[in-house]
Amino acid sequence: ANSLLANTGTTIFTVMSALALRHQAINLGQGFPDTDGPADIVAAAAAALQDGRNQYPPLTGVPELRQAVAAANARFYGLDIDPDREVVVTSGATEAITASLMALIDPGDEVVLIEPLYDTYLPVVKLLGGVPKLVRLAPPAWELPRAELAAAFTPRTKAILLNSPMNPIGKVFSAEELGFIAGLLQQHDAYAVCDEVYEHLVFDGLSHIPLMTLPGMRERCLRIGSAGKTFSLTGWKVGYVTGPAALMGVVAKAHQNLTFTTAPNLQRAVAVGLAKDDSYFRGLSADLQAQRDHLVAGLTAAGFKMLPSGGSYFVLADYAALDSDGDDAAFCMKLAEQAGVVAIPLSAFYAGEKPRHHVRFAFCKQTAVLDEAIARLTRYF
Amino acid sequence: ANSLLANTGTTIFTVMSALALRHQAINLGQGFPDTDGPADIVAAAAAALQDGRNQYPPLTGVPELRQAVAAANARFYGLDIDPDREVVVTSGATEAITASLMALIDPGDEVVLIEPLYDTYLPVVKLLGGVPKLVRLAPPAWELPRAELAAAFTPRTKAILLNSPMNPIGKVFSAEELGFIAGLLQQHDAYAVCDEVYEHLVFDGLSHIPLMTLPGMRERCLRIGSAGKTFSLTGWKVGYVTGPAALMGVVAKAHQNLTFTTAPNLQRAVAVGLAKDDSYFRGLSADLQAQRDHLVAGLTAAGFKMLPSGGSYFVLADYAALDSDGDDAAFCMKLAEQAGVVAIPLSAFYAGEKPRHHVRFAFCKQTAVLDEAIARLTRYF
Ligand SMILES: CSCCC(=O)C(=O)O
Ligand SMILES: CSCCC(=O)C(=O)O
Repeated sequence: ANSLLANTGTTIFTVMSALALRHQAINLGQGFPDTDGPADIVAAAAAALQDGRNQYPPLTGVPELRQAVAAANARFYGLDIDPDREVVVTSGATEAITASLMALIDPGDEVVLIEPLYDTYLPVVKLLGGVPKLVRLAPPAWELPRAELAAAFTPRTKAILLNSPMNPIGKVFSAEELGFIAGLLQQHDAYAVCDEVYEHLVFDGLSHIPLMTLPGMRERCLRIGSAGKTFSLTGWKVGYVTGPAALMGVVAKAHQNLTFTTAPNLQRAVAVGLAKDDSYFRGLSADLQAQRDHLVAGLTAAGFKMLPSGGSYFVLADYAALDSDGDDAAFCMKLAEQAGVVAIPLSAFYAGEKPRHHVRFAFCKQTAVLDEAIARLTRYF
Repeated sequence: ANSLLANTGTTIFTVMSALALRHQAINLGQGFPDTDGPADIVAAAAAALQDGRNQYPPLTGVPELRQAVAAANARFYGLDIDPDREVVVTSGATEAITASLMALIDPGDEVVLIEPLYDTYLPVVKLLGGVPKLVRLAPPAWELPRAELAAAFTPRTKAILLNSPMNPIGKVFSAEELGFIAGLLQQHDAYAVCDEVYEHLVFDGLSHIPLMTLPGMRERCLRIGSAGKTFSLTGWKVGYVTGPAALMGVVAKAHQNLTFTTAPNLQRAVAVGLAKDDSYFRGLSADLQAQRDHLVAGLTAAGFKMLPSGGSYFVLADYAALDSDGDDAAFCMKLAEQAGVVAIPLSAFYAGEKPRHHVRFAFCKQTAVLDEAIARLTRYF
């Protein structure tokens, strides 16, 4: 068997969700809402099954969805995207990330990755023969270490993989930080794979800025969005990549070898979703912000030191005041078994030296569920 | 951009389907039925959207579908498959093939491929760093060249990729041929990725024999099925891999990096489909056999020499008596533009020396559509 995969663990999200089931623990681990998204989108998906369009859709996606993705890019970011040549619909953002990396890199090319990192980034870069160059953000400030980032770029750098809003820390990259990254890309003639699946889940009046909107970046970015996250339907696995036509042609060829295409009824329903008016998108982030605030208040009262989260489904908690064991994986096991609450250890997002005494909680859950988790943790500590 | 992908063409199926649209030609190219599969399966998919299970399903597939896949393996082939450890549901058979190869091979490993070959096989093996070893079947007999096949296996062979029933030639491998291949796998301690997407589309009383059912092969095969083909819903992109538990754990890790999971409502509907009684499966192949016979009769009368097809959606035609240009790609362009019928050149399935004067027709179409294609071709020649 492939030695790299054989030596990779099962994804932490699956491991911890299984643990939650086993201990009947409240699952604030894997990032998915516990209520489904808008009923009209779900109804559109059901209706679209019934009109005889269940055979292969076009390789790059159904025209309705490609047009809706282009329109959303114009509406939210002022980006001018050609729906016929600059959009590829994928079977979820996971495929979009893999297809984008596959399209960009040749074996031996270097890819800059920022820790903490999502758990497919590193294995995928390696499986494609890429050479990862890791740069590290550290708690509590998560500041971009500019000198180290600059030093990670070399003549062999092909791309950076950038996740903003950033899982698991909820960091929303600022215009200044993005400008610094853009400068490095131009200086080194490199590209960015922009994992922006949480683009519409941003709080506190912050705004999400796609790197692609910065000067000179239109031709250097593959920007990835996720219907699952945008419409609280994570099981649908509909993602989309936008980028310059020449590169997108290669992304389409990667996609052709990975899944070829994605169920047309789900694509058509996502097109309906992207056409929703601004109040939907405002409501989505307002609701999540309220859930974040609720969980943060409860866990703060329970003794956790909560870190700021400006976006995503997630917030980090520093438990140093509650438990002297800095090994966050051991702490999470204990939480699951003894407190009946599942969280994800921050160390799962680091390949190098492990950070200590931080765990990630997902707040994309119903208030009653958050309350029960808070009650269990309060009781336990 | 990745040089291998940049130098790969867009898949012939997309190119020819676009050509069909442009010339309002009848599309007997890309293999998909022009009527959707069973209404009860479609209705099950619509119903499954509505009961609040639209978040991430388990990584390896919903339990209902894994159990249904295991049950179908027992019912059709007497195979004993553990639904919890020996099945991975994928986003279509394309992903299943890529995930299986990714799980098996390390860079430098050799993979035996049989021409004519489906168009993702060769690029995927190369993208994974595998070394393809091609063995060639040739018209009109398509006999397995045993000496050459044996010679293609070396101490560095990790796997063979075997497609039976075989696209584009409709060959259904015999027990004898499979026995020969099984011997090579044991002799060389190698594995098989068995692309059996057309397992239920077999004609003339032939039976499909999974390589996995042969002695010693249970632990050496990753067997791939396709709901799209089995239920005439090619757009759904639900596939499944079965194999020995130790390997399937690695397939799951490949899947985790490719798509992670597949829409739960479609998975649940496919589980309903796999539980259909034998009359459904008999009816499916009987209907397709009748369509094959209809097209073969019409094209024979039009002057094509039709080759036998024992399975799949496809039949090959030798057009040497009709046109002196042996370049089948040029011939297909002419057919599309001048006769208004799209077929696929056989040469698209060969990496090496191109065969001449053969094209592939898909017969998975309504009788009226086949009749119109026959009429156009009869008029043209
Ligand atoms: C694809 S399962 C993981 C979901 C997720 O993005 C997370 O929990 O971080
Ligand atoms: C995935 S598009 C190709 C469909 C097919 O299998 C074929 O036409 O050979």
